[in-house]
Amino acid sequence: MTATVTPLDPARPPSLAGMMALTANDMNAVNAVILDRMQSKVALIPELAGHLIAGGGKRMRPMLTLASAALLDYPGSRHHKLAAAVEFIHTATLLHDDVVDGSAMRRGKRAANLIWGNPATVLVGDFLFSRAFELMVEDGSLKVLKVLSHASAVIAEGEVDQLTAQRRIETSEEEYLKIIGAKTAALFAAACQVAPIIAEAGEKAEDALEAYGRNLGIAFQLTDDAIDYTSDEETMGKGLGDDFRDGKMTLPVILAHARGSAEDKAFWKDAMQGNRVGDEDLQHAQTLLQQTDALSDTLEEARTYARRAIDALSIFPDSRAKTAMADAAQFAVARAY
Amino acid sequence: MTATVTPLDPARPPSLAGMMALTANDMNAVNAVILDRMQSKVALIPELAGHLIAGGGKRMRPMLTLASAALLDYPGSRHHKLAAAVEFIHTATLLHDDVVDGSAMRRGKRAANLIWGNPATVLVGDFLFSRAFELMVEDGSLKVLKVLSHASAVIAEGEVDQLTAQRRIETSEEEYLKIIGAKTAALFAAACQVAPIIAEAGEKAEDALEAYGRNLGIAFQLTDDAIDYTSDEETMGKGLGDDFRDGKMTLPVILAHARGSAEDKAFWKDAMQGNRVGDEDLQHAQTLLQQTDALSDTLEEARTYARRAIDALSIFPDSRAKTAMADAAQFAVARAY
Repeated sequence: MTATVTPLDPARPPSLAGMMALTANDMNAVNAVILDRMQSKVALIPELAGHLIAGGGKRMRPMLTLASAALLDYPGSRHHKLAAAVEFIHTATLLHDDVVDGSAMRRGKRAANLIWGNPATVLVGDFLFSRAFELMVEDGSLKVLKVLSHASAVIAEGEVDQLTAQRRIETSEEEYLKIIGAKTAALFAAACQVAPIIAEAGEKAEDALEAYGRNLGIAFQLTDDAIDYTSDEETMGKGLGDDFRDGKMTLPVILAHARGSAEDKAFWKDAMQGNRVGDEDLQHAQTLLQQTDALSDTLEEARTYARRAIDALSIFPDSRAKTAMADAAQFAVARAY
Repeated sequence: MTATVTPLDPARPPSLAGMMALTANDMNAVNAVILDRMQSKVALIPELAGHLIAGGGKRMRPMLTLASAALLDYPGSRHHKLAAAVEFIHTATLLHDDVVDGSAMRRGKRAANLIWGNPATVLVGDFLFSRAFELMVEDGSLKVLKVLSHASAVIAEGEVDQLTAQRRIETSEEEYLKIIGAKTAALFAAACQVAPIIAEAGEKAEDALEAYGRNLGIAFQLTDDAIDYTSDEETMGKGLGDDFRDGKMTLPVILAHARGSAEDKAFWKDAMQGNRVGDEDLQHAQTLLQQTDALSDTLEEARTYARRAIDALSIFPDSRAKTAMADAAQFAVARAY
């Protein structure tokens, strides 16, 4: 596997800065669409949606649409509306996730469900999701609609799948990869694929950018799942150990459980079933994760996916956009260090 | 207003039977699409969706698509997929409504959220909603996509609006009509409008069927809101007085409150704020509704909308479909008697 991937470039520090600079002007246009289209005569909608949308976040997914368009020298402006649609789909899933997980924090702020309650949070998610489709319909590409409606169905499937796996200690690495491929990587992939579609760049470009986005999404999610056990609240914008307390079967847990003693296995099973939610339990989990190299191996796997993402760009000529997108893939994993 | 509407036909008993017979064959095809497209490798999805979808319901909205197509002598089969999409959108909103309202019963069965929990119910709703869009994209009409994505956004707006109005005794009849126009009538209207679009029947036919659906939807909702205070659990498939206990500001309450004494007004305010949830409170509410003619006037208003729906069909030549659709409009209100 490693023979086919490009080594990361040690001369360039991993960073999102290149991609942010590359897309800054376009992102202003996207933000204008987002602000305009989250409006409603029903005041609670922009209030609740704005809390999350204006409240930061990297705008990673729309940025991928914009960067992919830059990579292809796309000369038009259709990507602004479609990038906004991608962000709306993502925001809708975050709002519903907060209800599903009973989240306390999101992006360093109180989660919307804690401020406005589950009912409003569910419904505003539905509104944003519908708005996303309205934006796509306005654009008028059935192919874009197909890619993004399919991605939406796959995300929902992945989320239900994750719910089923939750607290189930038997979840395998393979099942886990299928889940994150659906719940996270599908939208990363679709966000990238939108650009070659509207740029009419052909099937090879579509496949390459789909692969870039998909592998990048998995790299991000694997890294997030490691960070959940290592970072602090300020860095993450959510609580340390949230996955642990929610009984989420992420790769670090799957590896540590598989490699643990009978006693360790019993601990993990008990913990995933929700019977070990104290700070000392989390500390013990962190110790086991260290001892079994579960975190470092999770990050190693993330690096493999990041490298695959970079490799997928090999069909495109060198450019500022290509460099920025490669740096972003390195950044996906480097956040954990 | 009444001068412009056709009187209901006393010779024909109000019934859905005509529309059901008219659409029976097509509905078999629609049901096949529904069963096929609610499948997923994630077993919980068809299990939860099937509980509601297979669990009965009149399939009113897809039936409207089919009846409208019959009215226009539409010869194709595109309406099967699109009617299934309409039903998926409706099912998604029902699942989310059950979470929003904390419903105990739906269509005479335990509500999905009580069996599988809120998280799975929210996510399966999202899945069905995405599947609806996939079906529409497969059909390939951007105009249908526009009508149904807009309807979906309007529904979500209406639901949030209703949430804001909930427990707010000041809600006016005008605000109430705006809410039910959005949360109920928009999908009825869109379901009907799909048919003239695919039949390429022209703008006049579209406008007429949109108006039929919209007015029919309002007639149904007004009647439902009256029935919530008059019928029994078996007839409704949900609990008597659910709206009362949820503090929903429906027209019966708006009228009874406006017409009540200072003491009655205080009762309604208290009740809508959730401080009067006992059986004797509901009985007192029913007494006040009777005394103020609030229920009969709500049903009278429903009859006006039903008549408008029937009138909207006047541009079409007489046919079995037209008769069936007129009967359905009468049935919308007659259920309350």
